[in-house]
Amino acid sequence: MHFAPRFYVSEKNTAPQERSFELERLVFFSDAVFAIALTLLAIELRVPTLTVETSDELLRAIYGEWPKFLAFAMSFWIVALYWRTHHRYFRYINRFDNGLIGRNLLLLFSIVCIPFTMSVLGEYGNLSSASWLYALNMSVLGLSSAWMWHYATVNYRLVSPALDKPFIRYILLRALSTPLAALIVVLLTFLIGGAASAGFFLIFVFHRILARVYGVQTESA
Amino acid sequence: MHFAPRFYVSEKNTAPQERSFELERLVFFSDAVFAIALTLLAIELRVPTLTVETSDELLRAIYGEWPKFLAFAMSFWIVALYWRTHHRYFRYINRFDNGLIGRNLLLLFSIVCIPFTMSVLGEYGNLSSASWLYALNMSVLGLSSAWMWHYATVNYRLVSPALDKPFIRYILLRALSTPLAALIVVLLTFLIGGAASAGFFLIFVFHRILARVYGVQTESA
Amino acid sequence: MHFAPRFYVSEKNTAPQERSFELERLVFFSDAVFAIALTLLAIELRVPTLTVETSDELLRAIYGEWPKFLAFAMSFWIVALYWRTHHRYFRYINRFDNGLIGRNLLLLFSIVCIPFTMSVLGEYGNLSSASWLYALNMSVLGLSSAWMWHYATVNYRLVSPALDKPFIRYILLRALSTPLAALIVVLLTFLIGGAASAGFFLIFVFHRILARVYGVQTESA
Amino acid sequence: MHFAPRFYVSEKNTAPQERSFELERLVFFSDAVFAIALTLLAIELRVPTLTVETSDELLRAIYGEWPKFLAFAMSFWIVALYWRTHHRYFRYINRFDNGLIGRNLLLLFSIVCIPFTMSVLGEYGNLSSASWLYALNMSVLGLSSAWMWHYATVNYRLVSPALDKPFIRYILLRALSTPLAALIVVLLTFLIGGAASAGFFLIFVFHRILARVYGVQTESA
Repeated sequence: MHFAPRFYVSEKNTAPQERSFELERLVFFSDAVFAIALTLLAIELRVPTLTVETSDELLRAIYGEWPKFLAFAMSFWIVALYWRTHHRYFRYINRFDNGLIGRNLLLLFSIVCIPFTMSVLGEYGNLSSASWLYALNMSVLGLSSAWMWHYATVNYRLVSPALDKPFIRYILLRALSTPLAALIVVLLTFLIGGAASAGFFLIFVFHRILARVYGVQTESA
Repeated sequence: MHFAPRFYVSEKNTAPQERSFELERLVFFSDAVFAIALTLLAIELRVPTLTVETSDELLRAIYGEWPKFLAFAMSFWIVALYWRTHHRYFRYINRFDNGLIGRNLLLLFSIVCIPFTMSVLGEYGNLSSASWLYALNMSVLGLSSAWMWHYATVNYRLVSPALDKPFIRYILLRALSTPLAALIVVLLTFLIGGAASAGFFLIFVFHRILARVYGVQTESA
Repeated sequence: MHFAPRFYVSEKNTAPQERSFELERLVFFSDAVFAIALTLLAIELRVPTLTVETSDELLRAIYGEWPKFLAFAMSFWIVALYWRTHHRYFRYINRFDNGLIGRNLLLLFSIVCIPFTMSVLGEYGNLSSASWLYALNMSVLGLSSAWMWHYATVNYRLVSPALDKPFIRYILLRALSTPLAALIVVLLTFLIGGAASAGFFLIFVFHRILARVYGVQTESA
Repeated sequence: MHFAPRFYVSEKNTAPQERSFELERLVFFSDAVFAIALTLLAIELRVPTLTVETSDELLRAIYGEWPKFLAFAMSFWIVALYWRTHHRYFRYINRFDNGLIGRNLLLLFSIVCIPFTMSVLGEYGNLSSASWLYALNMSVLGLSSAWMWHYATVNYRLVSPALDKPFIRYILLRALSTPLAALIVVLLTFLIGGAASAGFFLIFVFHRILARVYGVQTESA
């Protein structure tokens, strides 16, 4: 289906935009989604229902929910990590276009899904398929984040040409750590079942290795 | 009921405001509502309760909930689309008045209702009335968005007089795609029942057609 | 209990602050609370559980929940109204001190409580005590808003001395409309029970009357 | 595990950043988390289910939930207090580095956990272990807040060298009031059980004492 345009609209956003208010708005909107997703994670932690109301029984009930707390803490730090990555991206990205907005929305979509996949993991952490679902979510997160950075930096589309090539690659590899960890987790589920999910902590190890390899002196994660 | 005013108050906001801080605040407030509504959509996805706890059973249970995931994904992208539209509006609207705030609040009201109508659609997607409710919500969303744009642009009330007339009409028609898709969905329910809801994806088709007709070279949606 | 200070700390915030970043932060924080409360109202609308899954049955079930929708819509517009009032306050308040922050937090506390009192009203709207609870919440909202405005304007503490006295009084009376409506609702419950809650729509009538009396030409609400 | 870096990446953030947009973003992100946590506290207040639907019965049911309301109100004011503290920190902190971001995220983690620990306290306030859990949350909150301030001010790392030493210590001691109150609460539970939780109101007393000792003339809390 192709129409010959009847007239040409002078749309102002076909060229990358440099107006700071709009870029700020994109960033603050993303920050809001990150902040809300982060806070909603804790909503999935439910007060246990006790049959006998004693202090010890409450401790035991909460302790018995440790897979939920682990899934919560892990998800919190992963979302926080991607917020920091996003924060870092926009230290260098100084203009935007529709392509960036679209990829950013895909990233936000994967963030928004985390409270759900985390809950499934917290509830059924012993089942392999719960790990797969969470790994799928993490992969979309990491890949969309990498895609966004690649889109912005290829041919210095939306970043300053002064940016170092190794630095661009370093940031890209960081974003790809998550899909790699997800792949390892999925493979491990065939050996050790749902416990493989602990493998997501590899993300933080990978980041530290990358920082060493690239000689970055900042604290990782 | 009519009172003769006792004295005239020099209210500063009868004329459109150009002060940027207040306009920013209107925009950020709207962004926050969009961001929260977007994130809350996923809250409606619930962890399934399994009778037999096996990995396959969990996959089957999640797969069985596909209408909810479809309703969620569709709603996410429609809300995201209207956020982008809103983002675009305020690229051109450079001042505000009470009329704009009121129409903007109506738009936000329809955004805030989406988690509810989406849940009804996800739960009872096979029933025509669930589609009608969702279609009603979408119509209010599209019409209030169009109303807001029309209000701002008629006689260049709140936009720069340099804005092209065809561009103004293009943006208006985009906003009206949603009520049109909603109407088609409602008509289709009489033929094919609740499955008609898939017709909301027509919104994205309409946008692409409009972009072609008006010769806009940006990525649609 | 009184201590002789050992030394005097040069706290920078004993005098009203004029630094715009901090004032902005106060305003955006408040906006975020307003936006979240507004969006959470709809979370209280629950998908009905149907015994027979037919399209008509769903319509009937949703129609049967009308008191909840009414409570939701009324609360949405009241919160939106107070957001607009807050927006208006900070058109004139151009500096802040600890007293303003404290009163603002009280206002936010009453906003945060609305999803709860609204739910009680939506569930038990036929009971007088549900109306009292909601009326109490509305009174705290209106009184804290009025208190904040009074605090900021008395002796032009935090506003420009150019502000008209009648305008200051007009804004104060607007904020006091809600406690007045709440009082009327409470009195009416003794005559007509829970249905008295509809009396909160008087707020919008009072505002229109005030706008007439004071000769303000803006759209009310 | 140590790698010789292959080349040195000129990461721009090894030195503290002074660029205001990024610092603002850190602050607004934190504000969003504070605002959401504050608003979500009220979500834990549930509409009571009545067996007999009378106005008196509703009042009795709500009155019977007073431990939940107390836990809610206490948590609201403590979160609000730490928001104010955060607001105050960034009056003086005028640049940031990765260390600050990490400590700030730990602070936000403890904020995000409050809706959960508050719910446990509201439901099982009569059990000592519910108080311990809440006290643990409060301690992490206070300690991470103090840690962040200490990190920023030691050797004037991220603040202006003009800041008074006594003022720096005053702010540090304020943040440490919460862990102190938490310790007292935990000790009291061995004497009076869950009722010890009321001891958290000591935080506000400690703040008032500190303000007296240091001769700060602002309203405390």
